[in-house]
Amino acid sequence: MSSSRTLQDYPEAMRDQVRRVREVVAGLHAELPRYELVVWTAGNVSQRVRHPQVADGSQDLFVIKPSGVSYDELTAELMVVCTLDGQLLDGTRAPSSDTAAHAYTYRHMPHVGGVVHTHSTYATAWAARGEPIPCVLTMMADEFGGPIPVGPFAVIGDDSIGRGIVDTLSGSRSPAVLMANHGPFTIGPDARAAVKAAVMCEEVARTVHISLQLGEPTPLDASHIDSLYERYQNVYGQ
Amino acid sequence: MSSSRTLQDYPEAMRDQVRRVREVVAGLHAELPRYELVVWTAGNVSQRVRHPQVADGSQDLFVIKPSGVSYDELTAELMVVCTLDGQLLDGTRAPSSDTAAHAYTYRHMPHVGGVVHTHSTYATAWAARGEPIPCVLTMMADEFGGPIPVGPFAVIGDDSIGRGIVDTLSGSRSPAVLMANHGPFTIGPDARAAVKAAVMCEEVARTVHISLQLGEPTPLDASHIDSLYERYQNVYGQ
Amino acid sequence: MSSSRTLQDYPEAMRDQVRRVREVVAGLHAELPRYELVVWTAGNVSQRVRHPQVADGSQDLFVIKPSGVSYDELTAELMVVCTLDGQLLDGTRAPSSDTAAHAYTYRHMPHVGGVVHTHSTYATAWAARGEPIPCVLTMMADEFGGPIPVGPFAVIGDDSIGRGIVDTLSGSRSPAVLMANHGPFTIGPDARAAVKAAVMCEEVARTVHISLQLGEPTPLDASHIDSLYERYQNVYGQ
Amino acid sequence: MSSSRTLQDYPEAMRDQVRRVREVVAGLHAELPRYELVVWTAGNVSQRVRHPQVADGSQDLFVIKPSGVSYDELTAELMVVCTLDGQLLDGTRAPSSDTAAHAYTYRHMPHVGGVVHTHSTYATAWAARGEPIPCVLTMMADEFGGPIPVGPFAVIGDDSIGRGIVDTLSGSRSPAVLMANHGPFTIGPDARAAVKAAVMCEEVARTVHISLQLGEPTPLDASHIDSLYERYQNVYGQ
Repeated sequence: MSSSRTLQDYPEAMRDQVRRVREVVAGLHAELPRYELVVWTAGNVSQRVRHPQVADGSQDLFVIKPSGVSYDELTAELMVVCTLDGQLLDGTRAPSSDTAAHAYTYRHMPHVGGVVHTHSTYATAWAARGEPIPCVLTMMADEFGGPIPVGPFAVIGDDSIGRGIVDTLSGSRSPAVLMANHGPFTIGPDARAAVKAAVMCEEVARTVHISLQLGEPTPLDASHIDSLYERYQNVYGQ
Repeated sequence: MSSSRTLQDYPEAMRDQVRRVREVVAGLHAELPRYELVVWTAGNVSQRVRHPQVADGSQDLFVIKPSGVSYDELTAELMVVCTLDGQLLDGTRAPSSDTAAHAYTYRHMPHVGGVVHTHSTYATAWAARGEPIPCVLTMMADEFGGPIPVGPFAVIGDDSIGRGIVDTLSGSRSPAVLMANHGPFTIGPDARAAVKAAVMCEEVARTVHISLQLGEPTPLDASHIDSLYERYQNVYGQ
Repeated sequence: MSSSRTLQDYPEAMRDQVRRVREVVAGLHAELPRYELVVWTAGNVSQRVRHPQVADGSQDLFVIKPSGVSYDELTAELMVVCTLDGQLLDGTRAPSSDTAAHAYTYRHMPHVGGVVHTHSTYATAWAARGEPIPCVLTMMADEFGGPIPVGPFAVIGDDSIGRGIVDTLSGSRSPAVLMANHGPFTIGPDARAAVKAAVMCEEVARTVHISLQLGEPTPLDASHIDSLYERYQNVYGQ
Repeated sequence: MSSSRTLQDYPEAMRDQVRRVREVVAGLHAELPRYELVVWTAGNVSQRVRHPQVADGSQDLFVIKPSGVSYDELTAELMVVCTLDGQLLDGTRAPSSDTAAHAYTYRHMPHVGGVVHTHSTYATAWAARGEPIPCVLTMMADEFGGPIPVGPFAVIGDDSIGRGIVDTLSGSRSPAVLMANHGPFTIGPDARAAVKAAVMCEEVARTVHISLQLGEPTPLDASHIDSLYERYQNVYGQ
């Protein structure tokens, strides 16, 4: 796979899917400022498009936000399409500067269908101290199944951010990781689930922070965390 | 009463009332994100529909939010109708995962006409520490008549949340209880009053928290709390 | 002046003025939720209407919000008109439960043309501790000319709130007073100025609170406060 | 240059540019309340208009907000045009009371094309303590290239605010300075860049403040700050 290929070299079903996912990803970007997870042009959402004939995922694509574009201007047409090595395949803009981290995550976590990155305030404040968020709320047990872990400090420019995300999340039930001094990355079966994880990550980061300002929250028993997590993952919703 | 009954088995006046209450409950859900009490699909509002011929309340119904549906999509049609044992009577969706707690409250507190549950940030932060909110504001004396109490830790899946709500509120003037490590539940004569209690609960949770960050609020005398509460419950409004 | 008089007993110029002031006061109420100074039905704005022929102000009226009405429903028609002894003169609703405090202020401070009351979060947090807000910001010197003072604890139902407002503000350049355990009242030459003072009071209450969370703000010299206040009151604006 | 000159004495290309910049500056003012950097009429944005024939910049103009006008009323027509000595050249309103500080900055920093001033809450809270914001976030290294410095206390009315801005920013990579007990001023190649710096200044002021509330953020190495800053200034965006 190289930059000499174009979207036309992919199956028609996949090109149709790219069209739909461009709409989905553009629409989901509106949730980031709505929930006050980002300011100005920060933050990005991506979603994987699976190749219908190559089961190992190596020929999958993903749709992501272009770099440095205002949230008011984000349309489906402006979204860009990348291969899993992080190269631009289709689109008129440069992809997000976090594209390599998204690509690494899709390459190494085949079950992941969506990735979100923000600098949401409270989650980033925990990340600046390099402290995991302890699991002291039932909603946190539901969504994260335990503490939200911290990933290593990593500078943009190579695979180190992606590797930090994958290494940290591989050993955790949490769909969110706080990259040290940087901010949260979240994953999910699709982009909508990863956006939900980003929203809930900030919500619990804020609530636990505020609780700690005036004393010590009561810890949850591991067995309660397990049963809340099991029920929520299997029963909640429609 | 069992799942073999349908809404058609209830008196026409009650079915008319169900139609009106579906509108009311759908509309009141919009107040939860507006006052920033919930994110994503969290939180729920319900209202009792009284049986016109069975005075003991055992044949009452209640209207509640479906599980895991986004606030943007909540219409009167999507609201579901349950019996007081928490079973779905009418509706195309699964009821809220907190339905059993609402049902228990309606069964054991016949004067309660509305119930609201949120994970609002400051109230939940107090709940995580298991600390009641002290009554140090005149608006808190007006609305709650004293401190906002904490209920026991209870795991979803049986009657323990409902029992915790009823046991705690039965011994208090407060229409709000902070369920430990979980979040606030509020009650009222109808759903609108319970929503107001949820809004005011977060407001006083936040204001008292912030006051405590820089020192000790001055306590209110019990006699002042009593007179403020009496006046507000009997004189305020139209 | 008694409840047997009606608005028709006042000069036509004054009745015209009442009509305009109803619009102004209804419109200014929208600023309170916009700046997040109030929730639900809390808070109120009033403006004096001067009698054109009675110079001592004793025959003035004021327009104020009705009690317990939602901010979404506030129209000019719903505003009520009261005499300076706090009695309803014109309107279909009961006046705000804070009407006596507004009336007392207008009776005893003839230069005051507008009064606002809120329970805005940070100002009320200072009020709960009974602590004045120290003057450590140039914008605070501009608007308040020194610290924002605390008024006494006073229970609703007689003149004690009004007396606390007037006594405290008579000895201060500040147009805002923090009534202990209750919340801020602000005054101005008209209702718009009193709303601005309420907005600025919360803004400086929040900023000084946050500054104090991590250390000690640098005090401003009294001479700098004086010169900032003088310039702002005389030069700023159009 | 004196008040006897008018805009008609400037080249046509410059007058056309003034018209465009009035629109830009009016539009950018809407970003200040949108990002909650200002309340009421506080804050101001300006942009330089370069003289096409006088290379030393001495004949440049700038467009700025009028004094004390509400954000809802700000139109391109209301914006005022000033010379670099801070005198009104064109417009029906008095210029912002911070005009002298903007003018001083344009006179002494010829590469600056836009200036913004706010009283945004967290940045002003740091300014009240006279503490620089330490660089502990990758987004802060990206945008500010190090800590955000504090400028001297300066009273409005002469050149001391402008001199404090210029002296402090001349020795820093940061486009933001926290003027002691006052608030942030930001600069950029144009007004949009200065608005972005004001938004990011408040964002990092808040995030670092919150991180410090519960412990010590991990410092970033100077070499990491340098490489993040270099990459962001040269690669990010389209």
